[in-house]
Amino acid sequence: MVKVAIFAIGSELLEGSIVDTNSAWLGKKLTKAGFDVTDIRLIPDHREKIVKLLREGMETYDIILTTGGLGPTFDDLTAETLGEAAGVGTEMNEEARRHMVEWLKKRNVSIKPSHERQALLPKGCMLFPNNSGTAMGFGVEKNSCTVVSMPGVPYEMYKMFDDFVMPFMLRKFSLNERFSLDLRIGGLPESDIDDVIRELHLPSSLECIINVSKGECFVKLRGFDKSLIDEYALKLKDSFPRNFIGFGDDGMAAVLLRLLRERDMTISVAESCTGGMIGADFTSVAGASDVFMGGIISYSNDVKERILRVPKNIMINHGAVSEETARAMAVGAANTLQTRCAISVTGVAGPDGGTDEKPVGTVCMGYCIDRDVVTKKHFFAGDRDAIRTRAVKTALREMTELLKK
Amino acid sequence: MVKVAIFAIGSELLEGSIVDTNSAWLGKKLTKAGFDVTDIRLIPDHREKIVKLLREGMETYDIILTTGGLGPTFDDLTAETLGEAAGVGTEMNEEARRHMVEWLKKRNVSIKPSHERQALLPKGCMLFPNNSGTAMGFGVEKNSCTVVSMPGVPYEMYKMFDDFVMPFMLRKFSLNERFSLDLRIGGLPESDIDDVIRELHLPSSLECIINVSKGECFVKLRGFDKSLIDEYALKLKDSFPRNFIGFGDDGMAAVLLRLLRERDMTISVAESCTGGMIGADFTSVAGASDVFMGGIISYSNDVKERILRVPKNIMINHGAVSEETARAMAVGAANTLQTRCAISVTGVAGPDGGTDEKPVGTVCMGYCIDRDVVTKKHFFAGDRDAIRTRAVKTALREMTELLKK
Repeated sequence: MVKVAIFAIGSELLEGSIVDTNSAWLGKKLTKAGFDVTDIRLIPDHREKIVKLLREGMETYDIILTTGGLGPTFDDLTAETLGEAAGVGTEMNEEARRHMVEWLKKRNVSIKPSHERQALLPKGCMLFPNNSGTAMGFGVEKNSCTVVSMPGVPYEMYKMFDDFVMPFMLRKFSLNERFSLDLRIGGLPESDIDDVIRELHLPSSLECIINVSKGECFVKLRGFDKSLIDEYALKLKDSFPRNFIGFGDDGMAAVLLRLLRERDMTISVAESCTGGMIGADFTSVAGASDVFMGGIISYSNDVKERILRVPKNIMINHGAVSEETARAMAVGAANTLQTRCAISVTGVAGPDGGTDEKPVGTVCMGYCIDRDVVTKKHFFAGDRDAIRTRAVKTALREMTELLKK
Repeated sequence: MVKVAIFAIGSELLEGSIVDTNSAWLGKKLTKAGFDVTDIRLIPDHREKIVKLLREGMETYDIILTTGGLGPTFDDLTAETLGEAAGVGTEMNEEARRHMVEWLKKRNVSIKPSHERQALLPKGCMLFPNNSGTAMGFGVEKNSCTVVSMPGVPYEMYKMFDDFVMPFMLRKFSLNERFSLDLRIGGLPESDIDDVIRELHLPSSLECIINVSKGECFVKLRGFDKSLIDEYALKLKDSFPRNFIGFGDDGMAAVLLRLLRERDMTISVAESCTGGMIGADFTSVAGASDVFMGGIISYSNDVKERILRVPKNIMINHGAVSEETARAMAVGAANTLQTRCAISVTGVAGPDGGTDEKPVGTVCMGYCIDRDVVTKKHFFAGDRDAIRTRAVKTALREMTELLKK
């Protein structure tokens, strides 16, 4: 297999100012295409260190993809260090310079000496166009290893990789096509899923990986024999009659939107402790607007009462965090937004506000489908962020399950 | 300085099924405490590879923190590989086993053979309590290097690190206290900020890092002399009279909530293309409820009209994405939710829906403060995710600036 390393360059990544999401994005695409991502390293902006790791990497990998360090500032060192590691040095690259000047002119940005630095690239490098920013990508070959450097700004890197770097890699390495299929399983602990998979005795030519993240579980099947993958995917699906959600790696929101669209249904939300996260999730899916109408973020009780029309005595008798309030919120959203379905969430996300009866992590949901309402009460472990994320995923999953019944 | 490496273990991280956020979280805490995070590596679940990298690491770093691979499934290899790398092997650890059994019993989970594996730990290891999950952390010392292994589930790792691993590290290495201060600068390109910093001629004992991410910029000052940091922080602040937002590394939402609280003001949102993201951002801050009342996710025009009372003729004459509609949405939110301030966002997030006049990336905002409304129109570059994120950050920043005027 073709060994790929990803080097994410930038001290801010090691210091945790920014989470490196580029490497996961690249890892997903590369793995799917059949490359073997053997290494992901986050590397600080230290000249000697970058040069050393590039040199070592050139002896080890077939290809190294770097992200970051192409900017105009003094701590952007990728071009310089790659030139040094490959023993070619840098020079002003006229094509890269032209691209930069045109890009900045179009946007009425005056060109400064610091910008010029961006076009000092390894001598004789290949160029990869950047249609969304100033810095072109560049590649250098050395010791049967190719190093390709891309910008760190995610959307600039995404487009450059999809349009130019991936096609270059596929041309360069003629790969056996690898197939993969994801199964989404909901509401079961990892150990139960693991047990079921063991009992299926997967053939060794089939790779199987279980990922669990905040209440969602993916089982990934991978191999070179597509029919074998399909066969075992169906066996796995049948092994989880109640918990199988879908194939593919769409998010829960996309799965639910598709299901609603098939049934010609619309949905709205009433969110308290999740504060808009479910709406944000729905609207992260392009084309959600035929199904998702909107929602009410009812963070204060006054909004629950006035806009969602939750009867005051329900909140007094049962509390704002209760299945009764969740029920009234779901009905209120469906009525106010005139949708056939609605999801409501109200809970204690913490860190404060918990009581003995309703500890931090208590979250109540309401699911309204054509005026029928089902409510659920959950206790989620974790911090504020984990509780809210679990609430969102659980709400989307339970609504999907209810619709399938 | 004490050299720390972070090894995030799990094939899912290299394949991009999960983004590794643990390393950034650890990197931030460690850097702040004065440790030197020299390496972050993502390592697949391959026995030989993990053993090899642990062995090499034991020769190179003062401490290695690993996350992940402590679970009960067949691809959880951390304990086993650490035992092998340290040359001590593994054994059933009775204390870890007892913790696991008690944890599962309390939750009425039946104990399976796969669970027992979780208590097979390196012989003679130190233990670190896990108060939020089954798997205890463990540490092994070898060649003047200490390896500490923690779970990969973020909130389990966070608590274990804060309560037990960090105190252990601070005891073990008596560190010089390092100070750091972040400045938040809004609405300026990186190159302009860089120019200003160059002109200040920072002393070499002061480290300065610029991070830019989706329309926000942080300038970080770090060093061992607190008064020097404070002195240059003020100089920097004064260099950006219009664009300085605040000190500290609170998110924009926290900065804005604090400002509103100081003025005894409340706020609501009316979100179209951001679909709840601003609400989600506000409510990610614990204790937001005294300032943030809620909002309307008006994804459909019908919701804009009926709930926010945007006059139909405004949308017909100017379009749903227009400053005029944004103005009416902001007023509608303030009226409906009875808040003194309101933010509205309506835009074309793409990938479809753009026109020549209003291309993808066009986003209009409305800011209502005590019945006065200011509107803005922006064109954001990037994909759907980048456009929405930039819209959120810009809205929070512009509202903060308007309130400061």
